[in-house]
Amino acid sequence: MRLTEAVKRTGNSVCVGLDPRAESLPRELLADPKACFKTIADAYEKFACRIIDVVADLVPIVKPQAAFFEALGPAGCLALCNVNRYAQERGLLVVLDAKRGDIGSTAEAYAEAYLTGFASAWHCDALTVNPFLGDDTLEPFVQSCGRFGTGIFVLAKTSNPGSGFVQQARLDGEEVSTRIARWIEASNHPSIIETGAKYGSIGAVVGATYPAQLETLRRQMPSAWLLIPGYGAQGGKASDLRAAWDDNGLGAIVNNSRGIIFAYQKSTVTGHDWTAPVRAATLAMIADLGM
Amino acid sequence: MRLTEAVKRTGNSVCVGLDPRAESLPRELLADPKACFKTIADAYEKFACRIIDVVADLVPIVKPQAAFFEALGPAGCLALCNVNRYAQERGLLVVLDAKRGDIGSTAEAYAEAYLTGFASAWHCDALTVNPFLGDDTLEPFVQSCGRFGTGIFVLAKTSNPGSGFVQQARLDGEEVSTRIARWIEASNHPSIIETGAKYGSIGAVVGATYPAQLETLRRQMPSAWLLIPGYGAQGGKASDLRAAWDDNGLGAIVNNSRGIIFAYQKSTVTGHDWTAPVRAATLAMIADLGM
Repeated sequence: MRLTEAVKRTGNSVCVGLDPRAESLPRELLADPKACFKTIADAYEKFACRIIDVVADLVPIVKPQAAFFEALGPAGCLALCNVNRYAQERGLLVVLDAKRGDIGSTAEAYAEAYLTGFASAWHCDALTVNPFLGDDTLEPFVQSCGRFGTGIFVLAKTSNPGSGFVQQARLDGEEVSTRIARWIEASNHPSIIETGAKYGSIGAVVGATYPAQLETLRRQMPSAWLLIPGYGAQGGKASDLRAAWDDNGLGAIVNNSRGIIFAYQKSTVTGHDWTAPVRAATLAMIADLGM
Repeated sequence: MRLTEAVKRTGNSVCVGLDPRAESLPRELLADPKACFKTIADAYEKFACRIIDVVADLVPIVKPQAAFFEALGPAGCLALCNVNRYAQERGLLVVLDAKRGDIGSTAEAYAEAYLTGFASAWHCDALTVNPFLGDDTLEPFVQSCGRFGTGIFVLAKTSNPGSGFVQQARLDGEEVSTRIARWIEASNHPSIIETGAKYGSIGAVVGATYPAQLETLRRQMPSAWLLIPGYGAQGGKASDLRAAWDDNGLGAIVNNSRGIIFAYQKSTVTGHDWTAPVRAATLAMIADLGM
């Protein structure tokens, strides 16, 4: 619901991935990529907040990648939390890419951590969720989305070469990806019937690198927002993604991490302002998606 | 390797799960379960460290559950890190139950976070890993295990009722759980050939609640340590688990969380020492497993 508003307001579906890496940060933010965890974490926070400043008026949503922050231990977790809060303060939605998943009361604890809105410790609006443990393990996340107005994106088809290892297996003649899509669609129905909205709070992660499957999965879950990784650095092209959107340009967000946040590495303009190439790359992606 | 030594030294395969919950903590550690995150996090740390004191001379390994700490935000992450370190200082191995998994450089970041041994920010010896994204995404974890002497337990068959939703799907006639077991076995081979050890550093999570499948999976991956959840509170019984061990009593560890750490809730002995029932429950489980 809030994602629909945010995409309408900004007029585009670009999701900026916040994947900081010590060796790729501007030298002015981190002189020594081998510094201690705390120093790097502080630099990640500054870097991500500057990116947020640069894109806040352009895009609807950002996607911090938990792994890069977790690699720095508790100091990184604090930086992640601060980055999320700052993004929300700047009016952006935050989908935390943490791919959590577990059973029973443990899944409830993850849902409590990330999907309780204002009560949450992490300041995010949505979370990526891993369905490997089964449909019963997704229910606590669905419950929290309903209660707190948050959202999840369940992995359905990931963008990597080996994604078929599990995701192409079949049960009762149906691929795992399809099975998940069907579960998502069914889980969204109660809320879309109640609210009259076109999209529910249960979305799906579907990689840009498998365009045919993207088209099929889009048809199989018309009520789901798609979070599409794999654009840019991983090889996914805008022309492959047309099927993802409805006639109003809604229903999908496309993530780009490295191509935007490290755009200054490819910039031929000399000088100290590393943020100008970041903004230019964001605008170029908006244009490339035809928005 | 280190797990083999630890199990031999203690003479049993009990893994104590550290799953703190505010509403179940002894009142002397947390008077108000609705206190702020920081207060609860401090109580979790105290509670888990006391449990560690109580079981350190009895068992080889503990398994903190990341979700319960993450639910408290960065303060919880700091508590988790301190608990891990304390357990290691007390001579216990630490398998962090965080069920991480992602693609490419993101998987590398998770491996860096949790599996780099002394260089790691989190002070753990092993990590549970989710294979949903594919075999290619597991490779960075395997690399880190090889380089740093750490271990992973890949989810193969989880203990919950809905585990078949994905795990029973088939590819080329083979169930996902079997496919993962075969991958684990193949991944262990280079190292067991090199070292002559019976078990490699790539283990599997196989639930106690599916004894027939446990037996099958055990046969399919003779080189893998099994981490068996689902004993006790979830209904798994010691008699269901015989197949898990080799003739020397090695090859599997059995987790118990609530049944041990919250044992004082069921204790009929009045008084202030909540740790005595915890120790008694640990000894009872060791005896129940016939060790």
